[in-house]
Amino acid sequence: MAGSLYGKNFRVMTFGESHGPAIGAVVDGCPAGLELSAEDIQPFLDRRRPGQSRFTTKRNEKDEVEILSGVFEGKTLGTPIAMVIRNTDQHSKDYSDIQNVYRPGHADYGFDAKYGFRDYRGGGRSSARETIGRVLAGAIASKLLASVGVTVTAYSKAIGPFEITKFDRNEIMKNPLYMPDSEMSEKAQSYLTEKMSECDSVGGIVECRIDGLKAGIGEPVFDKLDAALSQAIMSIGAVKGFEIGDGFAASKAVGSTNNDSFYTDDDGVIKKRTNHAGGILGGISDGSEIIFRAAIKPTPSISKEQETVNSSGENVKIVIKGRHDPIIVPRAVVVVESMACVTVLDLMLSNMTARAEYFREFY
Amino acid sequence: MAGSLYGKNFRVMTFGESHGPAIGAVVDGCPAGLELSAEDIQPFLDRRRPGQSRFTTKRNEKDEVEILSGVFEGKTLGTPIAMVIRNTDQHSKDYSDIQNVYRPGHADYGFDAKYGFRDYRGGGRSSARETIGRVLAGAIASKLLASVGVTVTAYSKAIGPFEITKFDRNEIMKNPLYMPDSEMSEKAQSYLTEKMSECDSVGGIVECRIDGLKAGIGEPVFDKLDAALSQAIMSIGAVKGFEIGDGFAASKAVGSTNNDSFYTDDDGVIKKRTNHAGGILGGISDGSEIIFRAAIKPTPSISKEQETVNSSGENVKIVIKGRHDPIIVPRAVVVVESMACVTVLDLMLSNMTARAEYFREFY
Amino acid sequence: MAGSLYGKNFRVMTFGESHGPAIGAVVDGCPAGLELSAEDIQPFLDRRRPGQSRFTTKRNEKDEVEILSGVFEGKTLGTPIAMVIRNTDQHSKDYSDIQNVYRPGHADYGFDAKYGFRDYRGGGRSSARETIGRVLAGAIASKLLASVGVTVTAYSKAIGPFEITKFDRNEIMKNPLYMPDSEMSEKAQSYLTEKMSECDSVGGIVECRIDGLKAGIGEPVFDKLDAALSQAIMSIGAVKGFEIGDGFAASKAVGSTNNDSFYTDDDGVIKKRTNHAGGILGGISDGSEIIFRAAIKPTPSISKEQETVNSSGENVKIVIKGRHDPIIVPRAVVVVESMACVTVLDLMLSNMTARAEYFREFY
Amino acid sequence: MAGSLYGKNFRVMTFGESHGPAIGAVVDGCPAGLELSAEDIQPFLDRRRPGQSRFTTKRNEKDEVEILSGVFEGKTLGTPIAMVIRNTDQHSKDYSDIQNVYRPGHADYGFDAKYGFRDYRGGGRSSARETIGRVLAGAIASKLLASVGVTVTAYSKAIGPFEITKFDRNEIMKNPLYMPDSEMSEKAQSYLTEKMSECDSVGGIVECRIDGLKAGIGEPVFDKLDAALSQAIMSIGAVKGFEIGDGFAASKAVGSTNNDSFYTDDDGVIKKRTNHAGGILGGISDGSEIIFRAAIKPTPSISKEQETVNSSGENVKIVIKGRHDPIIVPRAVVVVESMACVTVLDLMLSNMTARAEYFREFY
Repeated sequence: MAGSLYGKNFRVMTFGESHGPAIGAVVDGCPAGLELSAEDIQPFLDRRRPGQSRFTTKRNEKDEVEILSGVFEGKTLGTPIAMVIRNTDQHSKDYSDIQNVYRPGHADYGFDAKYGFRDYRGGGRSSARETIGRVLAGAIASKLLASVGVTVTAYSKAIGPFEITKFDRNEIMKNPLYMPDSEMSEKAQSYLTEKMSECDSVGGIVECRIDGLKAGIGEPVFDKLDAALSQAIMSIGAVKGFEIGDGFAASKAVGSTNNDSFYTDDDGVIKKRTNHAGGILGGISDGSEIIFRAAIKPTPSISKEQETVNSSGENVKIVIKGRHDPIIVPRAVVVVESMACVTVLDLMLSNMTARAEYFREFY
Repeated sequence: MAGSLYGKNFRVMTFGESHGPAIGAVVDGCPAGLELSAEDIQPFLDRRRPGQSRFTTKRNEKDEVEILSGVFEGKTLGTPIAMVIRNTDQHSKDYSDIQNVYRPGHADYGFDAKYGFRDYRGGGRSSARETIGRVLAGAIASKLLASVGVTVTAYSKAIGPFEITKFDRNEIMKNPLYMPDSEMSEKAQSYLTEKMSECDSVGGIVECRIDGLKAGIGEPVFDKLDAALSQAIMSIGAVKGFEIGDGFAASKAVGSTNNDSFYTDDDGVIKKRTNHAGGILGGISDGSEIIFRAAIKPTPSISKEQETVNSSGENVKIVIKGRHDPIIVPRAVVVVESMACVTVLDLMLSNMTARAEYFREFY
Repeated sequence: MAGSLYGKNFRVMTFGESHGPAIGAVVDGCPAGLELSAEDIQPFLDRRRPGQSRFTTKRNEKDEVEILSGVFEGKTLGTPIAMVIRNTDQHSKDYSDIQNVYRPGHADYGFDAKYGFRDYRGGGRSSARETIGRVLAGAIASKLLASVGVTVTAYSKAIGPFEITKFDRNEIMKNPLYMPDSEMSEKAQSYLTEKMSECDSVGGIVECRIDGLKAGIGEPVFDKLDAALSQAIMSIGAVKGFEIGDGFAASKAVGSTNNDSFYTDDDGVIKKRTNHAGGILGGISDGSEIIFRAAIKPTPSISKEQETVNSSGENVKIVIKGRHDPIIVPRAVVVVESMACVTVLDLMLSNMTARAEYFREFY
Repeated sequence: MAGSLYGKNFRVMTFGESHGPAIGAVVDGCPAGLELSAEDIQPFLDRRRPGQSRFTTKRNEKDEVEILSGVFEGKTLGTPIAMVIRNTDQHSKDYSDIQNVYRPGHADYGFDAKYGFRDYRGGGRSSARETIGRVLAGAIASKLLASVGVTVTAYSKAIGPFEITKFDRNEIMKNPLYMPDSEMSEKAQSYLTEKMSECDSVGGIVECRIDGLKAGIGEPVFDKLDAALSQAIMSIGAVKGFEIGDGFAASKAVGSTNNDSFYTDDDGVIKKRTNHAGGILGGISDGSEIIFRAAIKPTPSISKEQETVNSSGENVKIVIKGRHDPIIVPRAVVVVESMACVTVLDLMLSNMTARAEYFREFY
């Protein structure tokens, strides 16, 4: 049992090594009749594509998607949608030095321990390029969600110690760091520049909001909506923590303030006066905005000299070459958004079979 | 697709409502030949059983497990192990008041939105009694793990704002709050007593350590070990956050200090000088101790009056009766441990098929 | 990965050894709001229960089901439905002779080869009592199917060489062999009596018809409706063949006669003039009656002396004691029906997510 | 939940429409370290490729596979192996006539009923070209199986009414119909030629033998080896029946002759004197040769005029153009073999976790 398959109804299988011929994904279970073309997917890819600001790797690939199947006359067929992106700007030579060396903070040692060898070029399957497959699927899920008014918005909440103090949704896409607070973004950029000059890297926090989701989504016990989101997000490389609503702060709260009171508004809609829960209670959406955060570690590839071992078990020094982002956070934003889209859609599809009355009406 | 099934190799299906006839679990995929009896499972149940200290609900059930299948002459058969616990101390009348009212912080509203109605007695399927099924499976997994030297130890790291400042492994099981720091436990107990007197409840943090796990466990991309643990833990009711290693603190770090240097010790074993990563890199265990934390919210059931709505959409006041823990954390400790055991075992079983050479040797 | 889990939406996990404490099943994914009680399930159990005619084993158990969870106030909750039947009339002593001997035609040798040992009492997990779990789930599925007009009817098509020449639906339930042809049933009964007197056993064919199923059910490629039915039916012990529509006879036909012509009837409904396909084309239901057959081998447990080996590898003779049916077919009828119900329902639930327009309307 | 995913450990997702840009498969879960290149896969593709004899469609495509991922330095990485074949010889115009007409014996009507529309060109996803994905995966599985001495051999047992009377294994690959009986093949070829001249098509039977498989493979209850094989084979388009060992003939037998006696041979190996069971007892391999058969219907695409309806529900006549095989059987041989390889390998991988002792030794 390997791990490149995600989802139960909207199933995504991704594939590809960083320096192999191609990266891609196959989506099985996308409902038929969704209008879809490469133009719907490309903007998602462009958001994660490197080379867009001075804070991303100089690896410069167009990352143009080709849809190989599952779409006919501009609409999804209900059959698997295979999507492929050719790897074109590979500098594999950069990696020959690390063939037999385990980079600190990377999966190199784990892959060797697991498989006996690995594709060391650019991290192989554990490269950040793996996330292309997630974004391909996320773009499709996003379009279907949008058609029922569900929107997913991720952004950088913090870059290192610099955390937003305001939330300007319109700022996100204009901002080189995808921060919804332009002032804080300026400070974060200065900080990044400083750390880059020190051959170091920086971490941060991505936050994500899901709006328009009705109450009732999520499956009790193991496939709770927040549990599913957590796996989805924690499976993204470099993510070290996940929290929903007040998250870790809730552990210090008391029940009387942490509970969100329900009320019925003037239109007869059940709402909550607060949203400490982050839109999910008992694993099921409660109709409020869903809000969660992912903690992302600093890029492990740094050009500072580090101590490590090689595959013969010798203690060695390493200076990592190649092209690396000084920070993962901005490029992770669209990946978090994509995984959230896939996860929410998958559980919305599950919910279609929740009641015998739905089954009967449908039939 | 409902959500009461967990695991891919060691598969657990749990069942049961709080006030229905019984609660239980079926485990399919437990390897044959493991010595097992109810005596192996009962200690796990006893740890989560209420009524053991003044900080737990007075619901007093023995929670004695009966094994219905899958064990013969003291050993597992390789076939499904069904385990059942009768519900015996039900005070269903306590819940008639909340039949049509949505308790703040609970899944009541979500269940109604999803299914059209719910078993309101004691929270039904969303009761903390649901975790019995997890503990049943966890006890079995724990025994198999122990036989290869893998141990999983969870404990209370924080009760409200009171966080441990030392780690005394021997203290954990002696302590009414399962804290490995007796002094901090005293302070936490005073705090709990105070909040109980205010009809309020308290949250906290459970920490868990996995020792003895070799490098190479976890499946790349979606079924990373940390991602799987995250889903497992976040699926436990009341958990609002998950982090591994330095977790959210890593988001504020820089790469040069966050990376853990590898070195080879005098016995030729590859180790790490630090463990900011928490024992998992790229989703695969690196041979270090695995350490993660779960943030747990305050018990939502409090006897203070709260505002809410009923199922007719009317704004009402609610005072929750029934027997409730003022804090979930201590009883969640064994549940976290159980879910970690099942998850790690499941991925260890996956790893048995990782290499063609294993396949050939095995055959 | 063990094999006691079936279904993707309507998921069934069965458990239990023949002579263990209990046999049962847990169904996860049954839509909420279905009226259900033990009275709906018991008639299915009674049909497979032994001791009802001279052609079944004298093991005499009431096989009364207890529902442990998932039903509240007479309706399914959407949560797992656990059902248990106690084993009560066990003559385990009958089996001590075969503890170390591999019965011909049985799974004994395979279980030992797989697991290293086995519960030899009554065949353990490979006993025909295992089918109780299937029938429990089938009864629930049947009720939900009936509510939308889908009915599943199985019967004995052939007992040994005696095959029905007419189909009288009303005769099936009156007939001790569940044959829809009373005359042929008489002949078959004489034949059975003769073979019983020779300490021998007899095989036969179960046929099953599914009526009322609309076109469009079944998932292309691997989860075709006929492929799913095939696995479901072949997984029943003693089934050695499966065919749909003309089945093996189609292999001798030519295309011009084997193809079923479509036509539109006076009400504008698309129909077929013939049904060689058995109601499924390309793995998807075509709106016609679905008709399939299962070939069932003679009961392997016979009281004639047979040659075999013991677990030490010695050649020995065996005379099987215990209580055994001289024919499996009549009692398999309700099992075939049950597996067909679960399979069709599972794929009908899948189909609810087939189109983006369904998703949007539902939302 | 769509149906293009197969397998639990060795997981295969296939994709592609007949006249879309490409056809392919992704295999996740292939153990690492298997030597693999396109040269291992191409011979399988060549066997199913059309245009090789006068009995296959004249569609002439090289069907050259490109491996996009999962292989590095000639060995599998343990990561997903994506394989793609471009569709190059598409005569889509041939199909414009059938855009709105439901071909008898085809999935056209079912696809429209299910999805609301379909890719009508060449049958789209329900084309025989879909089987390329199966063959890609089968070739890989076959290589891994061969490395432990497990071989899978399929061949034409019958072409229409012409059934082999001898089994010459060496003849299979030399024979244009893949029949192991050259004389019967001659007769079958004459018959085929005659039916082609009548614008008609012919069915037949594929038989498959699995040699070298040890006892103990297959999972009790639902994932029995024969049940899994049955789904695998029945999921191939045009297959209408499946039987193992004596299959349907067993339904007419008596127990005393149908049971296979075990004995220990001079080398102390447990064997069976006969093999009516076809190598599987209780769903688990018994160490004998596994032998099963698939009934394949005549090609539904015939150039004779047929009656049918169009998508507006009007009764129309249809004469199918395009390039079609007069018989499916010979080209199905390698597809049956491929599905058997994947299925057996998948269950062999499952079996690696069957015992606690394996788990401990492995660790």
